[in-house]
Amino acid sequence: MERIDGSTRLFGIIGDPIGAVRSPEVFNAMFMRQDVNAVMVPLHVGTADLRAVWTGLKAMRNLEGVVITMPHKTPAATLVDRLGRTATLIGSINAARREPDGRWQGDTFDGHGCVEGLRMRGHEVAGKGVFLLGVGGAGAAIAVALAEAGVARLVVQDTDAEKRDRILSRLTVAFPDVVLASGAIEDNAHVDVAINATPLGMKEDDPLPFDPALLDRSTLVVDIITKSTPLLERAALTGHRTHGGQHMHHGQAIGVARFFGFDLDAR
Amino acid sequence: MERIDGSTRLFGIIGDPIGAVRSPEVFNAMFMRQDVNAVMVPLHVGTADLRAVWTGLKAMRNLEGVVITMPHKTPAATLVDRLGRTATLIGSINAARREPDGRWQGDTFDGHGCVEGLRMRGHEVAGKGVFLLGVGGAGAAIAVALAEAGVARLVVQDTDAEKRDRILSRLTVAFPDVVLASGAIEDNAHVDVAINATPLGMKEDDPLPFDPALLDRSTLVVDIITKSTPLLERAALTGHRTHGGQHMHHGQAIGVARFFGFDLDAR
Repeated sequence: MERIDGSTRLFGIIGDPIGAVRSPEVFNAMFMRQDVNAVMVPLHVGTADLRAVWTGLKAMRNLEGVVITMPHKTPAATLVDRLGRTATLIGSINAARREPDGRWQGDTFDGHGCVEGLRMRGHEVAGKGVFLLGVGGAGAAIAVALAEAGVARLVVQDTDAEKRDRILSRLTVAFPDVVLASGAIEDNAHVDVAINATPLGMKEDDPLPFDPALLDRSTLVVDIITKSTPLLERAALTGHRTHGGQHMHHGQAIGVARFFGFDLDAR
Repeated sequence: MERIDGSTRLFGIIGDPIGAVRSPEVFNAMFMRQDVNAVMVPLHVGTADLRAVWTGLKAMRNLEGVVITMPHKTPAATLVDRLGRTATLIGSINAARREPDGRWQGDTFDGHGCVEGLRMRGHEVAGKGVFLLGVGGAGAAIAVALAEAGVARLVVQDTDAEKRDRILSRLTVAFPDVVLASGAIEDNAHVDVAINATPLGMKEDDPLPFDPALLDRSTLVVDIITKSTPLLERAALTGHRTHGGQHMHHGQAIGVARFFGFDLDAR
């Protein structure tokens, strides 16, 4: 922290609440390790103030980029000048950067983080069949990233049928080569990967999002929640391989860092 | 820097240019020493953008205060909700903080820094006669701080007679007990302290702001420029005690830190 001086390049993370965000620690450790004179600071901003803060941030000439977290991911997508392909498809961003021409570019790395996290653990999704439960903000981003990564078949399910059908119709147009369907887990026992992208498992007494016992023993069971969840504990008992949310988070950080011009894992 | 997390309290310094500011190093070293989870970052903001940035900063809930430097000291005084006494008199601020009621309070510590810097070196100005050359932003603040500190007599001079007379008339109203005058250095040889608050001495080939040889040998010769200046070098040759600008800078930092709720020199 003593290294911050007048020439330090600024990055921020905007959210509400902000206390639990991890990006400042991840990015500042990277800046230290790589001897980059930059810092990421938390910016606690309420929904009503997002537009005013955004205008201010754009006018700070040494501010190069921001990470965007809840509840700003969707409204922030309307504040940037340009959107990346995934952000355009799902209508939300989790990062924005100042371009050389002064415009702001936004994109989302939530979904790519999931795919990257799977790859880092040796799980390639290209050509595979995937079941995805939950297409809220994170789930929709994961659906797009899976399609972009070349899954052969993607089955999505959500308690909100309208939301489910909206993402399916967008994916149908954007990724004609992917076989898309909606359906229940019990009708999709043979998928290679089953992903929980709902919040079920965050709270102590949540029901299981789905029962891994319904799946083939070879199916990889994935949760995007970072702590150990009843789903993953149950999947271990039923003899399935499991993959926790920490890998997605690391994958997201890698994607955002690359978007900002850094290699997170470089020494 | 690795200590910054989601709960970190934010402070900023706004200026243009920003590369040479020292406040981040001074304050962040204090935060580290005192184990305070806070950080000060540089904010590079041009004149045309000050208002937009200010609106944004006010909406960042974890931003507690800002230091204001050139060229924003005067316009920023119009952006806060309340001004301290010195700031009201000179119409500029070098610090602003968020009050418990959410309003922003601004004040200036440029002048108090000068008086505090003198005190720290054993030079009490109360009851003394002082000659002050230059009543631009810093000079005007020093004039007010000297009057507040209880100088007996204050002689001010400036190449801009209108600016000089404006500060004199304000001081006359605010400090009826101080004997105020304008005048040349050669007519004020007996002052206890003679201060250069002009930029003369910043550049290599600047003329001396005044000739210390004209002053009594007992007069303390003060410069607010932080590097060694021809004035102070000449004053040493003429047998005068000298006092450089670094003390004023330390005094300013102490005042701003106190305004933000910290004791800069605590261990």
